[in-house]
Amino acid sequence: MTEFELIARLTQHLPRNESVVVGAGDDCAVLECGAPDRQLLFKTDAVVEGVHFTKDTPPEKVGRKALARCLSDIAAMAGTPDAAVVTIGLPREYDVILVERLYAGLGALAREHNVAIVGGETTTNPERMFVSVALTGHVGRGKAVLRAGAKVGDAVFVTGELGGSLAGRHLEFEPRLAEARWLATHFKVHAMIDLSDGLAGDLGHILKASKVGVDVGSDTVPVSRAAKLAAKGSSTAKPPLLAALTDGEDFELCFTVAAPSAVRLKDAWKEQFPKLKLTCVGKLTSELGMRLKDKYGAHAFKGNGYVHFA
Amino acid sequence: MTEFELIARLTQHLPRNESVVVGAGDDCAVLECGAPDRQLLFKTDAVVEGVHFTKDTPPEKVGRKALARCLSDIAAMAGTPDAAVVTIGLPREYDVILVERLYAGLGALAREHNVAIVGGETTTNPERMFVSVALTGHVGRGKAVLRAGAKVGDAVFVTGELGGSLAGRHLEFEPRLAEARWLATHFKVHAMIDLSDGLAGDLGHILKASKVGVDVGSDTVPVSRAAKLAAKGSSTAKPPLLAALTDGEDFELCFTVAAPSAVRLKDAWKEQFPKLKLTCVGKLTSELGMRLKDKYGAHAFKGNGYVHFA
Repeated sequence: MTEFELIARLTQHLPRNESVVVGAGDDCAVLECGAPDRQLLFKTDAVVEGVHFTKDTPPEKVGRKALARCLSDIAAMAGTPDAAVVTIGLPREYDVILVERLYAGLGALAREHNVAIVGGETTTNPERMFVSVALTGHVGRGKAVLRAGAKVGDAVFVTGELGGSLAGRHLEFEPRLAEARWLATHFKVHAMIDLSDGLAGDLGHILKASKVGVDVGSDTVPVSRAAKLAAKGSSTAKPPLLAALTDGEDFELCFTVAAPSAVRLKDAWKEQFPKLKLTCVGKLTSELGMRLKDKYGAHAFKGNGYVHFA
Repeated sequence: MTEFELIARLTQHLPRNESVVVGAGDDCAVLECGAPDRQLLFKTDAVVEGVHFTKDTPPEKVGRKALARCLSDIAAMAGTPDAAVVTIGLPREYDVILVERLYAGLGALAREHNVAIVGGETTTNPERMFVSVALTGHVGRGKAVLRAGAKVGDAVFVTGELGGSLAGRHLEFEPRLAEARWLATHFKVHAMIDLSDGLAGDLGHILKASKVGVDVGSDTVPVSRAAKLAAKGSSTAKPPLLAALTDGEDFELCFTVAAPSAVRLKDAWKEQFPKLKLTCVGKLTSELGMRLKDKYGAHAFKGNGYVHFA
């Protein structure tokens, strides 16, 4: 059973109550909190030594990454983050300086985005450090952008460049909060997600939730320099396009809008965010699944599998 | 540096914003969420295998405990819990049945208290399981009961019986949510905390936050049967009174009210919660610190130290 199958099985039976607008299964939960004009966003995410960072990763970057991942999920709902709580598991003989450096990195990013840190705890995890962050945020009533609203014919966009994040960007990425709020304010964004598991997988979540398919133009996918360098540097590395489609931790936005807005969106974006690339990578179809189109035709692309390229 | 010293050092410099009513340092954070008549409560807590439970603990009880600890913190603010997110760290070769059993225990307690589970994740922690829960709740505007409101002359009460929780109760305790809300509705509760680190330590937090001291009557402290049995069963076990004062994980409430309400409170409580003991254990003083009073006089009781009994 994969992680996704396990989550699907578990989430079927989760308790709900009258506060739940959107439960588990989107980038954040959306909850009623008694406010007339806004709804609460709620998200948790953890990073573990040896999985999401190494023993050598500077603790400032560990703390930064732990919060940035949650911020990216708030961005994917077009929301504004408010307050975080932090749990750190540490070896018994912990190093106070290390904890302070971790909080320094986390705190600096929190200040950048006006996020309060309002609690937390340190506990024991003898073999390795883990950092779990839970984050609340808010969004105007009914304004959260879900995964489920995409429509046949929509243009699919991604911000930035994809692939090769593990070479360094995964510790330094900028959560696209301002960009997502601007998008949702000025355009009718039908569906949005942040790219944590790779474009193929995460766009796949939009497709599944919205019951649509996609044709992706293989020469339109914005491949990062890091993915290209990795492919050049090693014969066993993924080809750059595959890396851009399946490497995790890009933390860029992927979203869909009605095709007629696409050109206006591109122009307005260029003016608003001249330094951040925005690329239309494909079009949603009624035929389910994902297809990669190149000069030889359209090829079904299933899941994250390297094998399907053969 | 102890955990408390580390936390104190870290919390001095945490980022805040305009949503923060009460930040780190109470049982929960209190936040503005745009609602006219209520405020948001926010808390996180983690349990780790080998620290808070053993490899043999049934996973249902692990899940239950992870949520119950957070619920107890919401109770300590006189709040109502709303929604939880859950992070589980598991060995790579995880057992799906185990995760489902953990969620079953957590979910059953959530349903009892009308708490929604709205997200979470499973991640890798190769050597041991950890479970981190973050919980939101709400409280009427300005109605959160803090640690800082206790006044000289107040009567100090505790619910239930104290000590020996590790013999089993720590996996099965009932968070005192209904009791705390009833208390805050019917009485002016000046300060409240849940007992996670032992009465001496946790009452100490109220004393420090409220800048008062306490005289505790040593023969009034309600010692649990488990603490008495442990003392009988082993010559190296803590004396029962010391266990009641310093064992952790009681998860009972400790609170203070003005002395003139004490008798009326005792009577009303007996009618409302006939099965749950409520005990007045002492009186707040202007002399800082905690003193234990017995027939031989008053003895300063510092921290959790066994040595101070000698």
